[in-house]
This record gives sequence, structure tokens and C-alpha cells, in this order.
Amino acid sequence: MSPKSGTPKKNLMLFSGRAHPELADEVAKHLDVTVTPQTAHNFANGEVFVRYQESVRGSDAFVIQSHCTPINEWVMEQLIMVDALKRGSAKRITVIMPFYPYARQDKKHKGREPISARLVADLFKTAGADRILTVDLHTAQIQGFFDGPVDHLLAQTVLADHITETYGNADVTVVSPDSGRVRLAEKWAQQLGDRPIAFIHKTRDPEQPNQAVANRVVGQVRGRLCVLIDDMIDTGGTIVKATEALLEAGASDVVIASTHGILSDPATERLAKCEAREVIVTNTLPIPEEKRFPKMTVLSIAPLLARAIQEVFEDGSVTSLFDGSA
Amino acid sequence: MSPKSGTPKKNLMLFSGRAHPELADEVAKHLDVTVTPQTAHNFANGEVFVRYQESVRGSDAFVIQSHCTPINEWVMEQLIMVDALKRGSAKRITVIMPFYPYARQDKKHKGREPISARLVADLFKTAGADRILTVDLHTAQIQGFFDGPVDHLLAQTVLADHITETYGNADVTVVSPDSGRVRLAEKWAQQLGDRPIAFIHKTRDPEQPNQAVANRVVGQVRGRLCVLIDDMIDTGGTIVKATEALLEAGASDVVIASTHGILSDPATERLAKCEAREVIVTNTLPIPEEKRFPKMTVLSIAPLLARAIQEVFEDGSVTSLFDGSA
Amino acid sequence: MSPKSGTPKKNLMLFSGRAHPELADEVAKHLDVTVTPQTAHNFANGEVFVRYQESVRGSDAFVIQSHCTPINEWVMEQLIMVDALKRGSAKRITVIMPFYPYARQDKKHKGREPISARLVADLFKTAGADRILTVDLHTAQIQGFFDGPVDHLLAQTVLADHITETYGNADVTVVSPDSGRVRLAEKWAQQLGDRPIAFIHKTRDPEQPNQAVANRVVGQVRGRLCVLIDDMIDTGGTIVKATEALLEAGASDVVIASTHGILSDPATERLAKCEAREVIVTNTLPIPEEKRFPKMTVLSIAPLLARAIQEVFEDGSVTSLFDGSA
Amino acid sequence: MSPKSGTPKKNLMLFSGRAHPELADEVAKHLDVTVTPQTAHNFANGEVFVRYQESVRGSDAFVIQSHCTPINEWVMEQLIMVDALKRGSAKRITVIMPFYPYARQDKKHKGREPISARLVADLFKTAGADRILTVDLHTAQIQGFFDGPVDHLLAQTVLADHITETYGNADVTVVSPDSGRVRLAEKWAQQLGDRPIAFIHKTRDPEQPNQAVANRVVGQVRGRLCVLIDDMIDTGGTIVKATEALLEAGASDVVIASTHGILSDPATERLAKCEAREVIVTNTLPIPEEKRFPKMTVLSIAPLLARAIQEVFEDGSVTSLFDGSA
Amino acid sequence: MSPKSGTPKKNLMLFSGRAHPELADEVAKHLDVTVTPQTAHNFANGEVFVRYQESVRGSDAFVIQSHCTPINEWVMEQLIMVDALKRGSAKRITVIMPFYPYARQDKKHKGREPISARLVADLFKTAGADRILTVDLHTAQIQGFFDGPVDHLLAQTVLADHITETYGNADVTVVSPDSGRVRLAEKWAQQLGDRPIAFIHKTRDPEQPNQAVANRVVGQVRGRLCVLIDDMIDTGGTIVKATEALLEAGASDVVIASTHGILSDPATERLAKCEAREVIVTNTLPIPEEKRFPKMTVLSIAPLLARAIQEVFEDGSVTSLFDGSA
Amino acid sequence: MSPKSGTPKKNLMLFSGRAHPELADEVAKHLDVTVTPQTAHNFANGEVFVRYQESVRGSDAFVIQSHCTPINEWVMEQLIMVDALKRGSAKRITVIMPFYPYARQDKKHKGREPISARLVADLFKTAGADRILTVDLHTAQIQGFFDGPVDHLLAQTVLADHITETYGNADVTVVSPDSGRVRLAEKWAQQLGDRPIAFIHKTRDPEQPNQAVANRVVGQVRGRLCVLIDDMIDTGGTIVKATEALLEAGASDVVIASTHGILSDPATERLAKCEAREVIVTNTLPIPEEKRFPKMTVLSIAPLLARAIQEVFEDGSVTSLFDGSA
Repeated sequence: MSPKSGTPKKNLMLFSGRAHPELADEVAKHLDVTVTPQTAHNFANGEVFVRYQESVRGSDAFVIQSHCTPINEWVMEQLIMVDALKRGSAKRITVIMPFYPYARQDKKHKGREPISARLVADLFKTAGADRILTVDLHTAQIQGFFDGPVDHLLAQTVLADHITETYGNADVTVVSPDSGRVRLAEKWAQQLGDRPIAFIHKTRDPEQPNQAVANRVVGQVRGRLCVLIDDMIDTGGTIVKATEALLEAGASDVVIASTHGILSDPATERLAKCEAREVIVTNTLPIPEEKRFPKMTVLSIAPLLARAIQEVFEDGSVTSLFDGSA
Repeated sequence: MSPKSGTPKKNLMLFSGRAHPELADEVAKHLDVTVTPQTAHNFANGEVFVRYQESVRGSDAFVIQSHCTPINEWVMEQLIMVDALKRGSAKRITVIMPFYPYARQDKKHKGREPISARLVADLFKTAGADRILTVDLHTAQIQGFFDGPVDHLLAQTVLADHITETYGNADVTVVSPDSGRVRLAEKWAQQLGDRPIAFIHKTRDPEQPNQAVANRVVGQVRGRLCVLIDDMIDTGGTIVKATEALLEAGASDVVIASTHGILSDPATERLAKCEAREVIVTNTLPIPEEKRFPKMTVLSIAPLLARAIQEVFEDGSVTSLFDGSA
Repeated sequence: MSPKSGTPKKNLMLFSGRAHPELADEVAKHLDVTVTPQTAHNFANGEVFVRYQESVRGSDAFVIQSHCTPINEWVMEQLIMVDALKRGSAKRITVIMPFYPYARQDKKHKGREPISARLVADLFKTAGADRILTVDLHTAQIQGFFDGPVDHLLAQTVLADHITETYGNADVTVVSPDSGRVRLAEKWAQQLGDRPIAFIHKTRDPEQPNQAVANRVVGQVRGRLCVLIDDMIDTGGTIVKATEALLEAGASDVVIASTHGILSDPATERLAKCEAREVIVTNTLPIPEEKRFPKMTVLSIAPLLARAIQEVFEDGSVTSLFDGSA
Repeated sequence: MSPKSGTPKKNLMLFSGRAHPELADEVAKHLDVTVTPQTAHNFANGEVFVRYQESVRGSDAFVIQSHCTPINEWVMEQLIMVDALKRGSAKRITVIMPFYPYARQDKKHKGREPISARLVADLFKTAGADRILTVDLHTAQIQGFFDGPVDHLLAQTVLADHITETYGNADVTVVSPDSGRVRLAEKWAQQLGDRPIAFIHKTRDPEQPNQAVANRVVGQVRGRLCVLIDDMIDTGGTIVKATEALLEAGASDVVIASTHGILSDPATERLAKCEAREVIVTNTLPIPEEKRFPKMTVLSIAPLLARAIQEVFEDGSVTSLFDGSA
Repeated sequence: MSPKSGTPKKNLMLFSGRAHPELADEVAKHLDVTVTPQTAHNFANGEVFVRYQESVRGSDAFVIQSHCTPINEWVMEQLIMVDALKRGSAKRITVIMPFYPYARQDKKHKGREPISARLVADLFKTAGADRILTVDLHTAQIQGFFDGPVDHLLAQTVLADHITETYGNADVTVVSPDSGRVRLAEKWAQQLGDRPIAFIHKTRDPEQPNQAVANRVVGQVRGRLCVLIDDMIDTGGTIVKATEALLEAGASDVVIASTHGILSDPATERLAKCEAREVIVTNTLPIPEEKRFPKMTVLSIAPLLARAIQEVFEDGSVTSLFDGSA
Repeated sequence: MSPKSGTPKKNLMLFSGRAHPELADEVAKHLDVTVTPQTAHNFANGEVFVRYQESVRGSDAFVIQSHCTPINEWVMEQLIMVDALKRGSAKRITVIMPFYPYARQDKKHKGREPISARLVADLFKTAGADRILTVDLHTAQIQGFFDGPVDHLLAQTVLADHITETYGNADVTVVSPDSGRVRLAEKWAQQLGDRPIAFIHKTRDPEQPNQAVANRVVGQVRGRLCVLIDDMIDTGGTIVKATEALLEAGASDVVIASTHGILSDPATERLAKCEAREVIVTNTLPIPEEKRFPKMTVLSIAPLLARAIQEVFEDGSVTSLFDGSA
């Protein structure tokens, strides 16, 4: 009789919020596991309730949630899921946010504003998250908002491969839709093979004093296929105006590529009507049928997420997937 | 030339979420202040944005929000408001939750569940809350979930005064609608003048094996006016069944009194149709016109909140208002 | 030459405070381990000193202490034991409190009081506890006071099995000794087979104005065997008065069942003299010879604790044992 | 109508544990305040209960406790008092420990020991203490155990003044009773006017192999008045043996001076019998009548504590009182 | 005799590290205070020692340090100064970093890197900083790295005013030296009156395969005065190459404007030799004589810092100064 | 398809700062591993950059740094290395500081000073350190500054073995160079075989009023070999003066032994010139050629560090190595 000994095991368990179960299922399939069954519902007054149907003790838990509308609902649900894992003795909890919520509120634009992206990181830390796995942050600095490891996947390769396959020989210019994404455009330009870049400069036009804002194209786009890139498309206003400005400036064609298809109204209507040749997004957020239109291409992020989870579980070296600096 | 000196000032500032601005306005009126103007809206994808239109530096900030449906929306909004106050250098931040969200998930009912009421306390602490002011907690132990002062107001007096005025001479029995609120019924019974108490015991009826649950009245109610009390009415199912059971057991009449009128569907329909003589709630949660019905009485919690805020601001002694143990 | 690799081991180590070493020994026997030997004594001025006689590096440590009188002594000793484990590099520290100290101070009953049950949770967290394992909390909400997993065992089954075996065919009514334990009585009633319930309502008796408090039995007890239940028996005043009230109200017999036998003076004298047929407790707290009397039955909690420890060590699914909601 | 303004006030409130109320009363008198009345008692099972009888909102609270036997009792009581102040909205909480408990366990003497003095600091931080005020720490490094301001008062002046008055012209040698207090002896020697120092070296005597330990006097003491100093006298064994060694080595007389008179059995008996001319202590710990004897002198620490509290309250410069480095 | 009352005072105290005392003195002059005298030196092995010569109890402390070379020295010194203020009972501690150290390591550029800018924020929080005041962060997201208020001053106005006065009528194009500062250029362009913008695109030149990198000017610069802006000039390589590229592309003249003049070798040599007409920096970092050259203009940041400190001390509204989003 | 299982591995990885790579290499050799390759350099303005060239996920990381001049540089580098390990998902991070930086500032010697040794412990905790491994702390209480396990190795054995071998038969007296190290001298005296001890008492000499300080030898040294011990030699002033005092007092010879050879100027010059027979140090700090002189002996600490790392990695019992109480 002496201390009892044994060899610890590690168990990968995958959990899914209710926002986008199809993505979790697709990830599970790639990992050859099943999503852990759970009871999840809202009480009459909207409070979320979650209970896992299997023991989670000692598990290496991955909790996937897509942060689409209603976004606060899904944030709270994921926080509650993490709390239940913590109190149920999961060994390590990785929060997977393919789209990081509130990423645009990553600084005080003016005084007396919140920094909601930092708040989100702290809320998940408080609930019990040990690490975060996310895709194409609005700004890479958000990695630093979390006190712990953040695995930052880049969907750029997924998108760029599709573009190379489809438009490989075209004279491509990579275009940022505003002055804030020019660095991102430069990275795309490198990946597509040292292409030229351009951007749209929003300004009050001194020539036309009555017109509030003009979109000036800065850079060479005439006669070229413009790949208009952004991290997310919300209502589509900026990207559609940029498309128009590029075509007016003589672009031969415009292809829009963006990781996160938020597609709030009236994005689908705007994009479907605009003269872009193709609109490419991933399924970090669900793209329901009613938001789709003929020239839209939806690429799956699931293989990338599954590979990352596998590597995290096995403590592998995955810098090729991780730690980008979009 | 030496260190610069001065006398600090303290400024009470009142802030309101968008869930129930009428209550904040009413509180403000009692305090003779105005609610601090702010910009608050949702982005297209549902993210909440808040910005205060006046400096909050050094303020003694009170942030009021009612946690009705969509409750996760209002929780996130209040968290974001607190973050903005913290980053805007408010001196002290008091979170006012007339109805504490997720109060019913105050323990693990079974394994692998969250304790969401504790999570809520921690989220507000993380965001920057220094203290919480709330009314009639589902269980008083929730006070202990927050690491800091919690001022726990009791609406019982507000409700009981109304009952005494209206039914002063009746032979009252105070009734708990289930076995979990008997202690609360005892407190009411004391306040109404040492009245008898009873409760409803839910059980499988051994006489009728096919009927899953029977509501047995335990205690004397025949020929008496039953004051059926609870901390909250959500869908009204329990309270309406209790009313029926009491009338079947010979009660002469039933009056329902509850602090928090959540009134999720089909509460209004059920309550309007049931044979209770009066249904009394407070406005800790908004009670819109469409949820009201003729025999409903809504009492205002605003005077109580205003007095509490005033005492907190002035560091007064307010045990008569606070620290109840419902 | 490259990074050195290996397979981690896990070692269950059991530690015992000095309050109730017999219980730890009994648990150890069930687990087939020995309690880790230690040096523990008090200095002349009462300061506690602890030193382990074997290395605790990397261990999965379980620290058992019974919180009987002198309770503050045993709290401090267990805190110091946890600190020594933390500084000695134990891998995981589970604090076992069969009786949670200060559980009754789980809220502010009036203003300007502590919430000592929360304080206790925070003190153990600070000392280095990763998790708590406890039995029959005074209120289940105390689970939420600890920022981490709490395994909440229920002794009700242990007690109820004994009652069923002994009094299986009797007409049982389950009785709560006051208004605050009616919900618990309901749970017992379910476990014993849908029995009726009753409770004692303490009130000023309007018929006898000079007598301060009367104990009214609410519910049917005449001619029935009353199983009077409570989570703990301290001085025994309440439970003995309840026994008297039940017999006066015509109960045929009374059996008292309670998890925690604190048995502060004059509990033993009161219980031995009272007319209850049997008094059943467990050994979550030590029951020394001088506190025992003929009609007392002491059931052992050790098998339940041992099974729970085994499951925690092996990351098993133990919801049948855990997470009750007394 | 606009934000409500005012000028904050500050209120000094003094609270006392039950270990040594006479000291608190004496301090209160010097400060011209009264100790805040409270309800404090132990429940039958030893749990401490505290409730303040006046509002503590916004107060600058000073909580005094003497940590004598039963020391764990008084530690827990003071922790609970701090918790009640935190939850009762005191503005700033200063914990006054004239004798810091567990000060001797300030490091691991061997492996697998706690560092209880750090644990004590963390427990008070967790309970809500903002600052600590203490006298003559066993080692000055304990200041660094608390994450916040520690005001470290020195009683050496109080003691040394008495010695100078009483033995001003004698040929004094300051003596440390062991090798660990020689630095302290040097400080005393400076204060008493550059006196010589000596110490007792405990060693196995190579001349007498059967005798386990010998006390060698290192330094000149023959014909001199030895002032034997220490921070505390617990059972008195060391200090009495040192006295004997000094007299054997030819000292003309011995005076013992120590800040903290723990005086655990059989200290009083030993000291009363030993040949020291005078034994001087302060009342940082209570010295009840039965522990006193004719040649004992007890000096009061209350004036020093009162001056320190006054300066802390008024944010004064008090380096002359504070921050010693015993 | 009752609780002692009073009115609190607040005292602004200014502290200065040894990196750039001239800036602190200049700020002090604007505030009409003196820098608090202190003893500060390095021990022989390089350890920093600081001691304040006046009491800091209850003060509103502002600690200014310039983070120039040797930068780790000055970071540690400022951390130690904050620790001494915390332990000396300062009431509020504001850390002033005109140049935020490690601001460029604000994300993981590749895997297995630190996020040193977040680390710096956490180190100061740990030491005791309540708030940070800084100028022109490399990325505004760094605001979110600190858990507390960050006042983010913009020097752009100071610089732009000088440019407007000096070159008011010129045909100005604002130029970003790389793709990452285009958004900043846009802000400058707005402030200077809706000027056009351009940037330098670094690329492998497909026309000249043997040349690794080419600097392409994107945007119209021919015949225009280019105001080349950046947040900092370190070795000057980028900015000088950008100057050359602009002149090659036909710019009539180039003016360089940057908040932080790090000016590591060989910056001064490069800048002095390059064909820019003027190089404008501020004194957020010291600009010693040997780093200066004829066409350099150094503007003082002291008035801006002094106004900000004054507003923070007085809890004023200072959004016009703060919270920029460079 | 179900949860994915596996057996965790553990990998010992060794990392080295740039202060003393030879020591890390020597340790690595003893462990039969290689130091993990990394990119580490300073930017032009002195900011440190570190990137690991291999994945550190899941590793048991040991980060070794010697804290010699420029000490703040090396502290910051090690903090940044820890941050990179935390963000790179190392499983456990042990910080190895053979010489604990700022150990002498372990208390406030006077008011308004920092406690930098505590600050250092907190900084490493904040950066992500799980444990500290160090050698011969200036005071053992520093163990308690870190909130976690501290393995405190003693080099005394390494040094004493050398002395016993070299001077085994001599009449040794162990001497402390001042009043603060007498306890340490006593420990040495035990290890060398119950030798007598002495110390140097610094005092104003009453016989020579114009001479500020005299060094009095307290204890018997005439005709004996004095082993003059200290934990560190910085500029060597104290130890050289002690040597002189001992020789003047009739010592036959002096041998100096000290764990940490800081050897700031002019230590080497002083020591080389002084009449001590041998000066023995270890390589906890680098001892470059220019600091060495003929009678200096440098012993390697690497075997001790390697054994400790091995035991920590394997969760072995290593009290013989650890937890000393110098």
C-alpha cells in the first residue's frame, strides 16, 4: 500500500454552440470524432442553458462557436459552455472563434468608448478559457488582448489558392478598399506573385465642394483584374463602392475576396447587383441559402480548423498554419 | 512651487442601458439628476456600440439596466458600458440590476452544468464593476458570488404595503407555490402580521398512478384569502396551477404577488384567464402595454432604487433598505 | 542530443489533517493507499506546523480535514497543508471537506455581516486549492463560491438506504424542522417513494399572546412515522423541539436523520433524552464515544468519499455521486 | 438638473477583535475616538460571527487584533472582520497586527514545508485588506510578502528609552541570544551609544563529546551589564539559557528586552526564576496578571500605534515611526 | 468621542526617471510644480535603487520616464519607481511614457515570438500602475493591452501646426513610407486640408530580377511637396529610402515629420545627408546635441503632457487631447 | 467515432538567455540535451527580440539566465523569453536564476523605497513563470516572494568540499564579514565540523573619535585559518577590509569563499592585491578572463543545476539539493 500511480490519458473532445453546428460537424468529420452531445436551449426569458450529456473530466476540450447574428447570444452561450467545462473539470479549454466578435472595437476611436475586443478576451479568460483559436483577426494586435496562447490561423492561403487556380494568368492588381488594409493588400500581392497594389482613398473632393466624399483610386488599375480584398464584408457598402470606383478607373474586372462573410442586410442584394465578377468568402460564419447568389463562392474553413485542432492536441509544430500577422 | 493640492469632488452620474430607459428616467427624477446622454446602437451584425457624450472622469457612476428579453443583449450592453466607464476613468462603478440575470442557474442542478449566476458576477467584476445593487435575488447566496459589496434591496415591503392597504382585514394565508419558497412565505407571513403559511407539494399521486404529478396543498387554506408569493413570474405555469390547487382546496380567493414580472409567453394569457383576484408585480423589468391586463397591478421600484443610490453616494447607513435575506 | 522526452505519471497521494485521522485512514483503506506521513504539531503559541515526510512533487494530492471544534484551528491547518503542497510542487490539489465550514454564513442575514462561506472558498483558492470535494452543503449555491470545480456528494442515499431497510413498511411522512428545508424534505420524500411531507412553522402564537414562539406542524403527521431530516445537528435545539411538536401533533414515532453530526453541547443530552426512536448521522465529523448514546446510529461516509476520489483521480464520470442540489 | 456633486468626507473608524480589547481601547483613547461597537461571538461549533452595529460605508477602517493563543481563532476572526468591512463598503481597510502571526515560518527551513507568513499576507489580501500595520517583524522581509503598503513600526525606541533611563551609566554590552539576531544587536548597540556586542554560539562542544550542545559566548561580556535582546520571547528557553551562559562567562548582570511577550508555558516560571535583573516587554500581545512576575516591566505600544494610525489617516510623513529594518 | 472625520485632500506629485530629466522639468514648469526630489543610482552590478526624499502618502502620483537607449534600464527603473510609490501609499499612480517601449512588438509576426508590448502593460500593472499616459502609439490597439485607463495623446497637431505655418501654401502630398501607415497618412491629409496621399510599396521588382527590393511610389507626387510621415524614426533607413524614391518620382521637395525621434545610429548621419528639406521630431525622447543637425526641428511635447496631467488631476474632459486612433 | 484519445508526452526543453551561454551549455551537456536554438538580438534602440526556432508546444521549459551586468537587460530578456514560451503554449515554465537579481533589496531599509526582490518575483509570475529555481538566496525569505514553488539550491556544499579537500587539517574559524551573516557562518561551521565562528563588528571606535568606523573582530581568530564567507562579492570592499581586520587580529591565514562572484570594479584589483590566500567563487555569474587572478578558484555550479532540473522534470524527491535556508 503506497501512493496509487497511473499513466494519464488525454482525450480530445469537441463541443459546438448552436450558431453554426454544420461547421462543427464538418470539423469533427475531418478529425474523425463526434461533437459531444449536449442539452442546450433558451429559457422563456432568453437565458441560455447548457448541459453536457457525457463526462468532460480531464478532457482536452475544444469549444467552437460562430459569432454571427444574434452575436451577443452566441457570445454568452460560449461563455456559459466554458463555465460548464471549467466546473466539470475539463483539463484544458480551447475556445474556437472562427470570427472574433467585436474585433472592430479594438481601440477607442474617440474618448469614452469601450475596447470591446479586449473585453471579450477578458470575459473568456474569466469564464475559464485557457487558449483561443481564431481566424484572420481584424488586427493582429488582438492576439495580445488575451492573457495566454492565441493561435491565429490565416485563411488567406485558402482564398488565394482559389484565385490562382481561377485567374492564374491575369494581370492582377491587389486592391485595399480603404487606407487601413493596404498592408494586407501587400501580403496578398506577395502571395499571388509580387503583384502591384492599389487602394481607395476616401476624401472630400476639393474639385466638387458639394459632394461629401469621393473615392480616389491610388495606384495603377487600368486594364487590370483587381482582386479587392478585405477581412470581412458586413453590409457591403464599402466594398461595392470600391468596386465601382475601380471599374470607373478602368479596371478590366473586379474579384472580391474576404474571409468573413457577415453579409448583414443589404449586403447580398448589393453584392448580387454589383459588377464584380466573383465574390469569394469562407464559412467562418454561416452563409445560409438566402444570403447566397450565383457569383458567390463559399470555401470551407473546416479543414484548416481541423488541422489546427489536431496539432494543438498533439503539441505539434504548426507555425505554417498559425501566428499570421494580417 | 511645490506639489499641487486641491479638494476632490464627487459626482453622481447615472447611466442607462437601452432595455428599460423609462425606469432609469424615473430613478433620475427621484434623484434630481439627468441620465447621462450617450450614443448607443447595434452594428449591422448585432455588435453593441456605446459612447458617452460627456466626460465620466472621476465620476461615481451608477449603470442601470433591466435584464428582460433579449437578456443576453442587455447583459453584453451593460458589460460594454462598464468597460467604457473603466477606460474613461470613472472613479467607482456601481452596476444596478433590478432583476439579476441568470439568477436561477445559481448551482449545478445536475452534473456538467454551468453556474451562470456566478459567471455573471465574475463577468461584471472583470469588466470593471466595483459593486452591485440588485433587488430580491432568487437566492440570497448570490450576494456571495460577487467579490465586493452587493446591496440587496427588498421589494417585499413595497408589495406587502399594497396588500395590507387593499386586503387588510381578510383572513390571509401566505402560500409558497412550491417547496423551495416556504422560507420566503414565512417572511411574508411575519410582515403581514403572523399569518399562517402553506405551500404546494408537487408529487406523483400514488392514488392515480397514471397521472404524473399532483399538486397537494400542505397547510390550511380553506375559506382564507391566499396570498401566493414568488420572486418572479416567468411563463406563469407554476403560479397558475398553484392558484387552481388553492381554489380547489377551498381557498376563498387568491392574490398573486411577485417582484419580477418576466411574463414570458404565455404568462399574460394564463394570468388574465386564471381566477386569481389580483396579480401584483413591480417594474424591475419593463411591463409593456401588451403584457398588461385588467387585474394586474404594477408598482414602481424607482423610489427604492433612488433612495439606495442616494445612500450609496453619500455613504449613508441604509440597512433598512439593504441586505435582506429573501 | 535533443529535447529529453518521457511519459508523465500520475500519483494519487492522500493527506490528512489532525481533526479526524480515523476517517482519512478509513478512506485510505478503501482506496488501498496509505495516508502520506507528515510531521504536524502546534508551537507553544498555537501556530500550526506541517511538513510532509515524502516528496509530493507532481502528485495528485487529496487533503482531507474534518471541520469540527476547534474549527478555526482545523481551517488554518488545512490552509497551511495546501500551501505546503503548492510550494512542494504538487500537480493538482483537491481539498476534501466532508463538512464545509461556515456554511451557514452563506449570505448577509442583516447588513454589515461577512459572507464567511465565500471567504472560506477564497482562502482555499488563495492557498492553492484547485478543487473542492464536499458532502451535503448547507445550500447548494456554495458550489458557486469557489472559482473552480466543486464535487458535491450527497449522503442522502447512505442515510435513506438505512431508513428503508429499517422502516420499510411504515407510513412515513418526511418532515423539515423549519421552513427552510422543505425542498430538501421533498427530495427525501421522492427517494423514499413519494411520501407526504410536512414542516414546522415557527410563529408567535396568536392564541397565546404571552408565549413568544409556537411550533405549528404544517402537513399531515397523525399516526405516521415522521422522518425528521436536516443537513446538520448542532446543539439539537430545533430538531428536539420539532420532535416534540410532531409527537404532540399525533405522530406515531419520530426518526431523526442528518448528515453532519456537529453535536455541540448539549446536543447529546437533548437527543438522548428526547422521544425520537433513532438518531442517524454520518461520520463527516468525528463522533467520539462521549457524544454517542444508545439510540444513535453512525453511518460511514468513507466509502462514498473513496469512490469519489477514485473517480476524480481517473477522470471518470461520476454524476451519480456528484453534483447534488440539496 | 445635472450630475449631483459633493465633497467627499473621510472617517476614521477603529475596530477591535476580541483577543486584546484593552489595547484597542487604549489606542482609541490616544486617538480620541471610540472603538466601533459590534456583535461578535462564537457559535456552538466554534464558528466566529461578527456584525458591526454602525454603518461602515466609506470609512477609513483600522482593524486591530492581537495574535496570542488561540492564534488561529484570532486570525480567522480578523479575516472575517475584514470580509464584513469589504462587503459593507468600507473605503480603505488597514489591518493592524502588533504581532505578525506565523512570522517565524517565513521560509522553508526544509523541503515540503509551508511559508505560512506569506500565506497569512495573502489571506488578508484576499479577505480585502488594503494595507498592514505591524510592529517589529521577525524578519523585515515579511514586508515584501504583502502586495501593498506595510507600515512597519519599531518598538526598539520604546524599549531602549526605558533601558537608557534605568541603566544609563552602566558598561553595557548588547547580546544576541543566537547567531540569527546579531544584526539586531548591532542596531541596539548603535541606539544605546556605540556599545560592544556579543552573541551566543550554539555548538556541539568538541571537548565534551557526550554533551550535545554547548552555548559559547562570542564577544566580551566579563564585568559588563548584558542587555540581552530578541524580537519575541515564546517559552523562554533560549533566552534563559543565554542568561545563564552570560553570567557564567562573567557578566555582572543581565537585562532582557523583547518586543513581543508571547510567554507560552513555562516562560513565566523560567523567567521569574532566572537570574536576570529585569525582563522588559511591550503589550503587543496581552500580558495577563498570571503571566507577570515582580521583575517584569511591561511598556505600552498604544501611543506608537495611535500616532501611526493618525499619520496614515492624514497621509502624513511618518518615516521616523515606520519602515524599520529589524 | 466618535469616529474622526475630515475632508480628504489631493496632491499632484510629479516624479521623473533619469532618462530625460529635462522633459520632466519642462512639464513641471508648465504645471507650476517641482519634480519630487529622489535618490536614484545604480549599484555596482547595475541594479537600480530609488528612494523618494518626501512622503508620497495619499498623493496623485505622475511618473514620467523617456524610453530611449538603454531602454531596458529605463523600463526597470520606472517599474521600481512605481513599486516604491505603491509601497509608500500613493493614492493613484499614473505612468507617463511619452514613447511606449516595445510598441513595435505588438503582435506575433511569426510563431514563438513574444508580444512584448502587452508584456510591458502587464508589468506596469503588476508593479502598481493605475493608468498610463502616452503619446502616438505605434498602433492604437496597444491601448487595449492595459487593464485600465490609457490616455493616448496625439502629437500630430503639434507637428501639423508647424508644417502649416512653414509650408502653408505648397502643393502638399502626404506620404506614408510603407504600406502600414497609409491610414495615418490619410489622417494627416485631412488635418492639412484634404490633401492627396501616397505611399511607398516595397516589392521585388519583376523587371529587375536580380534586385531584391524596389520602392515603388503609389500615388501622385510629381511636382509636389511630399510630407513624409511616420510615428518614429529609428535608424532612418526606411524614411531616407522613401525620400529618395519620392525625389526620383519627381517630388519637388520632401519634409519628414515624426513624433518619436529614436535616432539610433546611423540615423543622424543618414538624415543629415539626405535631400529632405526639413526633419521634424518632438522631444518625447531626448535629442542630445550630437544627434542634431542643421535642418532638424525639435518641437516640445511638454505643453501637451502638462495639459493632460492637469486634466487627469482635475478629472476634466480632455477628449480633444486624448484618445486618438493613430 | 468518439473522443480522440492518446497518452501525453513530456519534453524537457532548455532555453538560454544571452548573458552566460557557457553555463547553459555546460548544464545541457550534463543533461544530455541541447539548448533550444533561438534568434535573439537587440534592435537599434535596445529593445530585445527573441524567437525560438523550434516548436515549444507542450514542453517542460527551463529558461536559464545569469543576472550579471547589464542586469536590467538580462532581466527584461528573460521576461520576454518567458512571455514567448507562454504564448507559444509551453506546458510548464521554470525560470532558472542562479543569482537572484535585486536580492539585496528584499525589504525597505528606510521609508519610500521599493522592495525590488518582490517586484522581480511578481514580474516573472506575470510574464508566465510557473516556478523558480535559484541558488543561495541573499535571504531565504525571498522564497516567499514568489507565488509558487521555488527550488532553492545551496552551493555551500560545493564550496565546502573544496575547502575540506584543500585545508582539511587546519585550525579553521568561520568568519562572517558583518553582523548580518553570522547565522550563515554557523551553518558553515557545522558543515566543516563544528568549528568556532567569529564576525566583524563595524562601529564608531570610541577610542579614536575622529575615525568614523572601526572593524572589531568578535570571536577567537588568533593563529587560526579564517574562512571568510559571504553569499556574494560585489565590489569586494567589505570582504577585503574584513581580511585585513582578521590578519591584524592575528589570524594565520584567510580564505574567502562566496557563491556569487559579481566582481564589480574594483573587486578584482582589490582581491588580487589583498593578503587572502585563496578566493573561491562559483560560476552562477560569468567570470570572464579579465576578472580572474592567480589565487582565484572558480567552481562550477552546472552539475548542481543539471541534477535539480532532472529531478524537477521527473518529479523526484530532491530535498538534499533543495530548500535550504541560508
